[in-house]
Amino acid sequence: MRDTAAILTEGLFTTSAAKTAHGLVRGPSRYEVVALIDSVGAGRDAGELLDGKRRDIPTFASLDALLASGAAKPKWCVIGIATSGGVLPDELRGTLLAALERGIGVVNGLHEILSDDEQFRAAAARGGVAIVDIRKPKKRAELHFWTGAVAKVRAPRIALLGTDCALGKRTTAQVLAAACRERDIATEIVHTGQTGWLQGCAYGFVLDSTPNDFVSGELEHAIVSCDREAHPDLILLEGQSALRNPSGPCGAELMLSGGARGVILQHAPARKFFDDQEHLENEIPPLKSEVELIAMYGCRVLAIALNHEGLPDRQRDNARATIERETGLAAFYPLLEPSDGLVRIVERFVASERAR
Amino acid sequence: MRDTAAILTEGLFTTSAAKTAHGLVRGPSRYEVVALIDSVGAGRDAGELLDGKRRDIPTFASLDALLASGAAKPKWCVIGIATSGGVLPDELRGTLLAALERGIGVVNGLHEILSDDEQFRAAAARGGVAIVDIRKPKKRAELHFWTGAVAKVRAPRIALLGTDCALGKRTTAQVLAAACRERDIATEIVHTGQTGWLQGCAYGFVLDSTPNDFVSGELEHAIVSCDREAHPDLILLEGQSALRNPSGPCGAELMLSGGARGVILQHAPARKFFDDQEHLENEIPPLKSEVELIAMYGCRVLAIALNHEGLPDRQRDNARATIERETGLAAFYPLLEPSDGLVRIVERFVASERAR
Repeated sequence: MRDTAAILTEGLFTTSAAKTAHGLVRGPSRYEVVALIDSVGAGRDAGELLDGKRRDIPTFASLDALLASGAAKPKWCVIGIATSGGVLPDELRGTLLAALERGIGVVNGLHEILSDDEQFRAAAARGGVAIVDIRKPKKRAELHFWTGAVAKVRAPRIALLGTDCALGKRTTAQVLAAACRERDIATEIVHTGQTGWLQGCAYGFVLDSTPNDFVSGELEHAIVSCDREAHPDLILLEGQSALRNPSGPCGAELMLSGGARGVILQHAPARKFFDDQEHLENEIPPLKSEVELIAMYGCRVLAIALNHEGLPDRQRDNARATIERETGLAAFYPLLEPSDGLVRIVERFVASERAR
Repeated sequence: MRDTAAILTEGLFTTSAAKTAHGLVRGPSRYEVVALIDSVGAGRDAGELLDGKRRDIPTFASLDALLASGAAKPKWCVIGIATSGGVLPDELRGTLLAALERGIGVVNGLHEILSDDEQFRAAAARGGVAIVDIRKPKKRAELHFWTGAVAKVRAPRIALLGTDCALGKRTTAQVLAAACRERDIATEIVHTGQTGWLQGCAYGFVLDSTPNDFVSGELEHAIVSCDREAHPDLILLEGQSALRNPSGPCGAELMLSGGARGVILQHAPARKFFDDQEHLENEIPPLKSEVELIAMYGCRVLAIALNHEGLPDRQRDNARATIERETGLAAFYPLLEPSDGLVRIVERFVASERAR
């Protein structure tokens, strides 16, 4: 049985800063999510707040309101937001300390290491509970260096890349993995972020807190371990950021160091500027040139996965048609429609990789 | 006056593993290099061992031999080699501990943090000297996140990229910086490796020991600080690895996050496989496709800098002609000929960037 957890988002649940919370509400999740703590939307169902689908996760205005409600005390309180630079916002501090004092453990995916903080350690000691810092950097001796062992991995790999960050790469990986498993394609996700770990992925690492020299090796180690231990038919590699995101380009290592030969490319047609860079007017490059760039890394884009944010219903089919014409690739809305078409494409890729 | 230092390479001085030592012997250097400690080549001049040019740096077979020679005791002993994964080789351990015990400080650019090692700390305490771990990761609070402030930097930037690692990007940066300064182009190098720091660069960071999420921000911070404090006409950004090196791709951040619009591309025509990946037969992609890849990042390759390793003298002109024909770009051997042609190209780039 999974541990229970409440997710803390403090007013940000309906923003993209809460993508960790969204992943846990949408599932899968390492924890049984029993409550959302967020003053905005208190009294409503977290699933309904997210995408209109009820998931029986009540929202409370505060930790006190949750504890006063008569509901069972959750085992963990998970920080459900990402912040710029991974710093803990002051507004969360009091709630988290109170949770620890009341015997609720804290799960933290921010860069800021709470178990290094005297106040947090004291509160955890008093409450008799633990602090889990998912992004706590590993010791040097635990880090793997790239060796090339990935060349011997049997399972074909598909990288989930995107034209920006925070536009649904991980969610598409989860949706696709579930759909593949239904078709008896044994599929594993190698996660590269803290949310993937929170969602219960057995293999992976937190890319952004890994010293740069060990990123390729940690990725390779996760892939090699996954292949050897789980014997999957397919490994999906979760992408981070985007190949040309000025705030921190990423993705080449999944193709070069992780040996992905197929890519599913996530794109939000209505998004013009890179996430959080609207004030800089940093434009997302055209989708077609992203497909060409990926080809220069020796990879083939198999399909486009579309994020419908900001697209009125009536424009979605049009946006899809335009993209399919421009790229010559099939495009899908993984959150809006069944994944049969996408799975068929993936199935053909797996078969062709096996035949190599 | 600079501190004196002996460089320790333990039998590897004439291999590419000793590129840190090569940079210090060739100069510039943060230290006055007074000796090389390496059992191979003992008795000869380190400059002659490197490239046939005498530099009055005697080579000793061991630390004991150096101390017995009657030469003044150096203030520091610098580890002059890089190792796979940055681990300290056992063969160096004894020499370094002995150096500390005898009152010589240790400067370490490996990932392994010697000041965290009890034995090293005890030896340093007994000798009354310090251990400098260049790659010691910064604390979270000291790390910078990318903000986009780089867009306001006045000085044009050129990235020194290469088709592989360990083929002379940093050396070309040093040669070019010196030649530019002679032509009154005030030039600064933003270093991205431990050797750049050892060579005395005032701005930069150690990319490979930086947590991935902060690489772009640390780069930006170094560039912004350099521009604001030194007011250079030109900033050269030292590249690491290569855009398509499977063991760890790198370079996109210099163009995207550092705002370099020009690139000088280092290439070794006689090198077929990526460094240290000969057993994997991982081929370096064609130079022309590297130029095209760089263009997809919004950058222009200004010139090709050639490394003549493995090229017999009589083939060098031919290799250059072939490359110039294939790429349509001028190619130079920065270590074999004066840099006038390269500087003229850089001068034109600086003028055109100023006119934007």
